[in-house]
Amino acid sequence: MVRFAVIGCGRIGRMHARNIKAHPRADVTVVYDVAAAAAQETAAAVGCAVAATVDEALANPAVDAVFVASSTDTHVDLIALAAKAGKPVLCEKPIDLDMGRVEACWAEIAPLNPLVMIGFNRRFDPSFKAVRDRIQAGEIGRLEQVIITSRDPSPPPASYVKKSGGLFRDMTIHDFDMARYLAGDIVEVQAMGANLIDPAIGAEGDIDAAMLVLRAASGALVHINNSRRSVYGYDQRIEAFGATGMLQAQNRRATTVEAWGSARTGAMDPVLDFFIERYQDAYLAEIDHFVDCVENGTTPLSSFQEGREAQRLAEAALLSLRTGAVVRVADVGVS
Amino acid sequence: MVRFAVIGCGRIGRMHARNIKAHPRADVTVVYDVAAAAAQETAAAVGCAVAATVDEALANPAVDAVFVASSTDTHVDLIALAAKAGKPVLCEKPIDLDMGRVEACWAEIAPLNPLVMIGFNRRFDPSFKAVRDRIQAGEIGRLEQVIITSRDPSPPPASYVKKSGGLFRDMTIHDFDMARYLAGDIVEVQAMGANLIDPAIGAEGDIDAAMLVLRAASGALVHINNSRRSVYGYDQRIEAFGATGMLQAQNRRATTVEAWGSARTGAMDPVLDFFIERYQDAYLAEIDHFVDCVENGTTPLSSFQEGREAQRLAEAALLSLRTGAVVRVADVGVS
Amino acid sequence: MVRFAVIGCGRIGRMHARNIKAHPRADVTVVYDVAAAAAQETAAAVGCAVAATVDEALANPAVDAVFVASSTDTHVDLIALAAKAGKPVLCEKPIDLDMGRVEACWAEIAPLNPLVMIGFNRRFDPSFKAVRDRIQAGEIGRLEQVIITSRDPSPPPASYVKKSGGLFRDMTIHDFDMARYLAGDIVEVQAMGANLIDPAIGAEGDIDAAMLVLRAASGALVHINNSRRSVYGYDQRIEAFGATGMLQAQNRRATTVEAWGSARTGAMDPVLDFFIERYQDAYLAEIDHFVDCVENGTTPLSSFQEGREAQRLAEAALLSLRTGAVVRVADVGVS
Amino acid sequence: MVRFAVIGCGRIGRMHARNIKAHPRADVTVVYDVAAAAAQETAAAVGCAVAATVDEALANPAVDAVFVASSTDTHVDLIALAAKAGKPVLCEKPIDLDMGRVEACWAEIAPLNPLVMIGFNRRFDPSFKAVRDRIQAGEIGRLEQVIITSRDPSPPPASYVKKSGGLFRDMTIHDFDMARYLAGDIVEVQAMGANLIDPAIGAEGDIDAAMLVLRAASGALVHINNSRRSVYGYDQRIEAFGATGMLQAQNRRATTVEAWGSARTGAMDPVLDFFIERYQDAYLAEIDHFVDCVENGTTPLSSFQEGREAQRLAEAALLSLRTGAVVRVADVGVS
Repeated sequence: MVRFAVIGCGRIGRMHARNIKAHPRADVTVVYDVAAAAAQETAAAVGCAVAATVDEALANPAVDAVFVASSTDTHVDLIALAAKAGKPVLCEKPIDLDMGRVEACWAEIAPLNPLVMIGFNRRFDPSFKAVRDRIQAGEIGRLEQVIITSRDPSPPPASYVKKSGGLFRDMTIHDFDMARYLAGDIVEVQAMGANLIDPAIGAEGDIDAAMLVLRAASGALVHINNSRRSVYGYDQRIEAFGATGMLQAQNRRATTVEAWGSARTGAMDPVLDFFIERYQDAYLAEIDHFVDCVENGTTPLSSFQEGREAQRLAEAALLSLRTGAVVRVADVGVS
Repeated sequence: MVRFAVIGCGRIGRMHARNIKAHPRADVTVVYDVAAAAAQETAAAVGCAVAATVDEALANPAVDAVFVASSTDTHVDLIALAAKAGKPVLCEKPIDLDMGRVEACWAEIAPLNPLVMIGFNRRFDPSFKAVRDRIQAGEIGRLEQVIITSRDPSPPPASYVKKSGGLFRDMTIHDFDMARYLAGDIVEVQAMGANLIDPAIGAEGDIDAAMLVLRAASGALVHINNSRRSVYGYDQRIEAFGATGMLQAQNRRATTVEAWGSARTGAMDPVLDFFIERYQDAYLAEIDHFVDCVENGTTPLSSFQEGREAQRLAEAALLSLRTGAVVRVADVGVS
Repeated sequence: MVRFAVIGCGRIGRMHARNIKAHPRADVTVVYDVAAAAAQETAAAVGCAVAATVDEALANPAVDAVFVASSTDTHVDLIALAAKAGKPVLCEKPIDLDMGRVEACWAEIAPLNPLVMIGFNRRFDPSFKAVRDRIQAGEIGRLEQVIITSRDPSPPPASYVKKSGGLFRDMTIHDFDMARYLAGDIVEVQAMGANLIDPAIGAEGDIDAAMLVLRAASGALVHINNSRRSVYGYDQRIEAFGATGMLQAQNRRATTVEAWGSARTGAMDPVLDFFIERYQDAYLAEIDHFVDCVENGTTPLSSFQEGREAQRLAEAALLSLRTGAVVRVADVGVS
Repeated sequence: MVRFAVIGCGRIGRMHARNIKAHPRADVTVVYDVAAAAAQETAAAVGCAVAATVDEALANPAVDAVFVASSTDTHVDLIALAAKAGKPVLCEKPIDLDMGRVEACWAEIAPLNPLVMIGFNRRFDPSFKAVRDRIQAGEIGRLEQVIITSRDPSPPPASYVKKSGGLFRDMTIHDFDMARYLAGDIVEVQAMGANLIDPAIGAEGDIDAAMLVLRAASGALVHINNSRRSVYGYDQRIEAFGATGMLQAQNRRATTVEAWGSARTGAMDPVLDFFIERYQDAYLAEIDHFVDCVENGTTPLSSFQEGREAQRLAEAALLSLRTGAVVRVADVGVS
């Protein structure tokens, strides 16, 4: 049984606390949130204690592992605290908006050889994982092209955009990680973006639509397209094209019903909205993978280094967006 | 080059005349219709002569084969005339509404060993033919179940129903033939029908919806469902289920476009409407098959006997509808 | 909080005990099984007590409701016991293999006005429920035809078949209930069956493939097709055809991955196998519905009477199979 | 009746000659090819004369229009000859591999106000045309993103690549035109390419895989992906994403058959191979559109200017590929 402290009891933290509770080999010992009411509510829902401080939560001997779901600016400190306490940590993405702080965090904890996993939930989606597994099993031969379609249902308020680090660091970060998950290390990034949806996002200096092309070290080319608005739901698809075949992971819907009428045929439901519904299975599998790693001392599929590399791609993309030129990833964020 | 006389220049006859014209190894020498204007129009469209009488058309030495597309009550006489003239004949279904006349026709012409093909166009549909070929190649093992869905876009006027012989003889006849095409000889028929759409059809003593179950000599069970009205278009599907797999032939649409919106996703066009559009490829392949048979002296896939057996199933179904009991096909229409 | 006694701790009982445990407003107080080890194992899994006898379980004041998942021959007695104890009961289908015992049970408990729900899980499948809800909301106009495809992955041993009551009472019972769920009361039944898969099943006097046609009081026609073997998985589909449209509920798969290669394109996973996986959501929704009924005193969607009527259709189908004639449901199983 | 001279009787020229012959308001008067045998063969197939020289063909008073299907290096001269002869001309793409010659050609003929159509067949594909028409009708609101997937079944010999002008000028040219057809004028181009399939293509200095991103003047972003090899057939898809919805044009297959088995479900045919089969309907519609333009004096959907602009995008892409930088289209190929 892996006993968790959950730090951060917002919507995401509560969801993870429930998922940990539901796992047959995991439980929540204690939760903490700067807002005491949120911590109380989550504690009541999963039947656990509330810690008065983060330190109290991490010092609890009945805590085997830490889940960090607090605000982004607290991540590197909490990862370091957990690592120093000798406790495995699963931290929501991103590690930090500032690559310098990400690198500094790693420099600090690397000697401890800590078990750190970053919450790239999509790696655990059954369909996306099947695409990766089947690529690696050789089903489509050498991987030549990947297309990642990733569109949110509706744009966040401009105020969120401001503090999120912008489209590439906040949203595309998942797609950069997916690119690496499927195609391996990325060596070049080209980005084009636009402000097509909400002028307030543009006023904050951010974009709300983007198309990128990446080149992997393997030679494969990867396209990512993003939009902050998709009226038919949270559009999450992958296409992997290889020398001997192609694999596509399609969207998911609430039912399998198709409607036929005089105006149209085979019409299906809108796609699942939003990430909590769409990636429900993935979040459960993510916890399961982390519990496995804790139990067996194995390295997570989405380690700290994976999180750092995804962020490096975001930095590369920002640079390409600004200059219009292809950016070599090796030239970015070198510590 | 196979040179045709086309007898009957209604909508169907004109379509066939054009298809013959377009065939690289066939041509239309002469056309005939009781309505001289219709014959003239078709002759102009395909660039051929008009015959003053059927006899003149059939006696023309530049006629190698006869296409019969005239009204049903003329079919048996025209088949017999062509057979006696030693000319291969391709006749629209049905042979005749009266099984006695069908049997008498065959008794008369059988000694001549004529080449007679009945226009069961669906046997030549590329998708349905692929299902049959793949069944016969063993792809799904022993055939156990067949489901034939066959729904017209909209009901004919009750006046047509009256003279058509009713749903089973006029519409289901194609499905009976398809059952035989896929599952072989049929030994038992159960039918249930209803008048759900147009009361005027019921007033003529006919039904406009039906569900049937047939047992093949092979042991396979076959379900046919019919409706005289399908608002999403001409619904023509087949499912063949076997010991090691299943094959489905789906509907056809004018484009491959799928529409995604806030209310629905993946919505496609209505299905092709009506038989001339839906079975365009099939009609062309039907002519091609007949030309092959004429050139090589081979037996058509849809011979006179096939046409007779399909009609026998219609008679069996009518009897089952009347009595509520399963009908043994062997007890029906014995000549 | 609705506190359950679970009677019967086989595979199905254990699954339900876990599902009850996972429900936010339900819990398991006590379990019972004739095999003490099975009861112990389930009790350990969900953290509850073990009763030494059924009476002890039902008499427990901390038991608000009873789940009956024991062998079929115990159902009517347990339903009666629960009803007399004034406790709502959710009982797995079928009520009993003998219609006389079903009727007698109802006669005994009807005066108590008990809350009895029969476990027709498919009524709670999100897709099938959506089809029903959308029919009732008028989306496809008057319902004219229903096609229920229901094929198990592989045949049970002949020994099971023997004591199960045969295909219609054991397997088709779900489809009879689905027919009623979608089309309402059924007035006529026609059945055709065959022994195509396992000769040992035939040797027991049973069939392993069937096609039926039913007529609803509303006028709608319903087709059911069954097979005891489907190599591509547990085939569970519904098509509802109406005056203004059609709704189809398709099969479910583990992922949304489609594979494209030189031999084929768009190939998907086999469909989910078997009922515990395929109807996982349905089983959870079934518990939720029962808990709602207990809390609010409302009548379940799948009441005792619904269970009885589905069985009456099984009896009608058996009679039709034997006689080859359409059977009027009103003539069957009158108490 | 529009009477054609067809110049060039290779595989493409012969196909067009047959299509013209089949058109109800068009005919072929004369054909010409530098290889007399090819011209003879085509003339025999469509029943027309053979010209000894191009001049003879164009001077023929029974010629109303000219179809140019000869080698690329002859296009501009033939277009100019036809324009000077006052005859409308439909010319296969590309106009010329050299933008200077393209510009010079236009400078020469522009004063004549000629009717020149370039054979961008894909504009006439029923599905792609439906996507454009529905975008323009406002179905998906403002167009924000377009994804064009365009993959050939197998790479041409390196010798062809050498004289074709390379991937962008030879193959992507169609996709550049499609981008303009759907999204209007393009202002920026970013290109990334790779040699992943045939080293001999790389040895000729060309690429066989590419991913590009374009920005339209409207603000829309467009992604194009290309491969010279697609084992599942000629992959031709379009996705148009807008503020209120999305439209996708999917691939086409020879049949609608889906296969279900123990290893996979819903498997369809490979997609149609190659352009003559895939775009059969488009080629017929292209002729029809040109005949309409000739009859009514209207401007073709794919005019000389459209052809020139598509080529300008190819030049921009080549420059981006070389420099790694985004290229402003306005800076390319200014005459």
